Amino acid sequence: MDERAALSLLEGELEAAGDDAAVVDDLVITTDMLHERTDFPTGTTRYTAGWRAVGASLSDVAAMGADATAAVAAYAAPEFDRDELLAFVRGARDVCDRVDATYVGGDLDGHSEFTVSTTAVGRSDDPVRRSGAEPGDLLCVTGTLGRSAVGLELFERSARKDTESDEDASGVERANELFRFEPRVEAGAALAPHATAMMDSSDGLARSLHQLAEASDCGFAVDSEAVPVAEALSELADDEGADAEPLERAITFGEDFELVVTLPESALETVRAAIDVDLSAIGSVTEPVEGITLNGEKLPDRGYTHGT
Amino acid sequence: MDERAALSLLEGELEAAGDDAAVVDDLVITTDMLHERTDFPTGTTRYTAGWRAVGASLSDVAAMGADATAAVAAYAAPEFDRDELLAFVRGARDVCDRVDATYVGGDLDGHSEFTVSTTAVGRSDDPVRRSGAEPGDLLCVTGTLGRSAVGLELFERSARKDTESDEDASGVERANELFRFEPRVEAGAALAPHATAMMDSSDGLARSLHQLAEASDCGFAVDSEAVPVAEALSELADDEGADAEPLERAITFGEDFELVVTLPESALETVRAAIDVDLSAIGSVTEPVEGITLNGEKLPDRGYTHGT
Repeated sequence: MDERAALSLLEGELEAAGDDAAVVDDLVITTDMLHERTDFPTGTTRYTAGWRAVGASLSDVAAMGADATAAVAAYAAPEFDRDELLAFVRGARDVCDRVDATYVGGDLDGHSEFTVSTTAVGRSDDPVRRSGAEPGDLLCVTGTLGRSAVGLELFERSARKDTESDEDASGVERANELFRFEPRVEAGAALAPHATAMMDSSDGLARSLHQLAEASDCGFAVDSEAVPVAEALSELADDEGADAEPLERAITFGEDFELVVTLPESALETVRAAIDVDLSAIGSVTEPVEGITLNGEKLPDRGYTHGT
Repeated sequence: MDERAALSLLEGELEAAGDDAAVVDDLVITTDMLHERTDFPTGTTRYTAGWRAVGASLSDVAAMGADATAAVAAYAAPEFDRDELLAFVRGARDVCDRVDATYVGGDLDGHSEFTVSTTAVGRSDDPVRRSGAEPGDLLCVTGTLGRSAVGLELFERSARKDTESDEDASGVERANELFRFEPRVEAGAALAPHATAMMDSSDGLARSLHQLAEASDCGFAVDSEAVPVAEALSELADDEGADAEPLERAITFGEDFELVVTLPESALETVRAAIDVDLSAIGSVTEPVEGITLNGEKLPDRGYTHGT
């Protein structure tokens, strides 16, 4: 059974499962496990790994419209190097500081592969689920899409080369920067009173829309010109070696941890005024029979699948 | 750097670290990572693994004197077998049910070794730390010590044999039972208003006492006759093949997840009347200069070290 089939199996077993985070009373809680082979390309610093792993869980808290309270991480590696460990902790702490959460440390475990398991906890009296989108609502996304796609491409370019040049070193540094995203906790909390459905884009916009559509029993009509493609992705496409069209990658790659949200059009300006990040209206919620379309064409359920 | 040195390093970095669980406002949070090679001997069912892994985190919540709210687990394995996954979830859910916590599921990850990372969250307005023991307080322990030592011995006996006999099968079943412990959440909450210091015995009684002594700046005088040795451990010692004296193993083996607690003698009967598990008074808190003694002899800091 693959990971998606296994997750579906468990959703049937567990009442609280099936959203970005589980809700128990006013508590929101979510956990993720990441490991070197699939989640931390060669060149990823431990500082970036700490930031990104803990950030991924904070993003799930953000996607519920909750305030982030605290995060923990279990850090597993073949050996515990002092500098690596401290760098990891500082990355984890810095991303928590950005969203006013406390990083409280966690557990250490000897392990053949560098593996991180993170949990974040938040609070909300009225969490936003994936299931409330209504035909006529606007479909919006925070920030830009494609940063992680560019980061991965830069990591891979550097890894393909035999010797390290100055240009590679700056590419790796840039890749690390791109991998350190801002969890949208503040935006999520500002969106919460208005949002009808919300999730994060960790599996890519296309897959997120399919998941929202299933949970809300709706369709989506997306306008490609409104999709906020990361500048870095367009720049990369101008370089040699880029192998996919920016829009395509922005829509399918994922791992950007932006919020994908539906809300009544009347609330858009109120929310925009309350948050520091761009909120792009990229389309609208439609009746389920209309399916999920990009410029009127069917948008398939494809994207980045975690851990494969 | 070994795991203990690394943990000490991190305690210096992280204000909330250094107790069984971290405290953020009224929230108590703790995480553990366990994996097959060191934590789940051959013969451990996935039901027992789910129970034990989640139970270990709930025990840390209990050790703070907090109510347990919820637990999550990340489940990593080379493949996702439907029956194994469901058994794991049922074990996790059953141990949560025992302590009135909600098991909310978690994450799945493809991984070369079966690995589980669990987080439990609880609430307390006045958590009990490791640091408040006062000379003159009683030293107590819940339940009995040595169940896990017997469980491991039974797993190992069965694994050493080439063919499986009926006797082995019942030994493995008994070992699984012994590995499914009761997290002492109810007892921890009843102890909380009276306890001066508390932790769980996951690293063994001897090591726990050294940790409490360091945190509280005190000594301990333990009376071996009062130490509640698990009946199964005494029975095992009567069999062929037992290779250590029951008391020695009860004190050093660990992984029993009982509470080790100090409290004024005046509170003992009140607490005993409020809880369903035995609370044995095994000694007293002394001045730090007196050190940690068993029947007047120095008790060294030795025991089971996780993950090695």
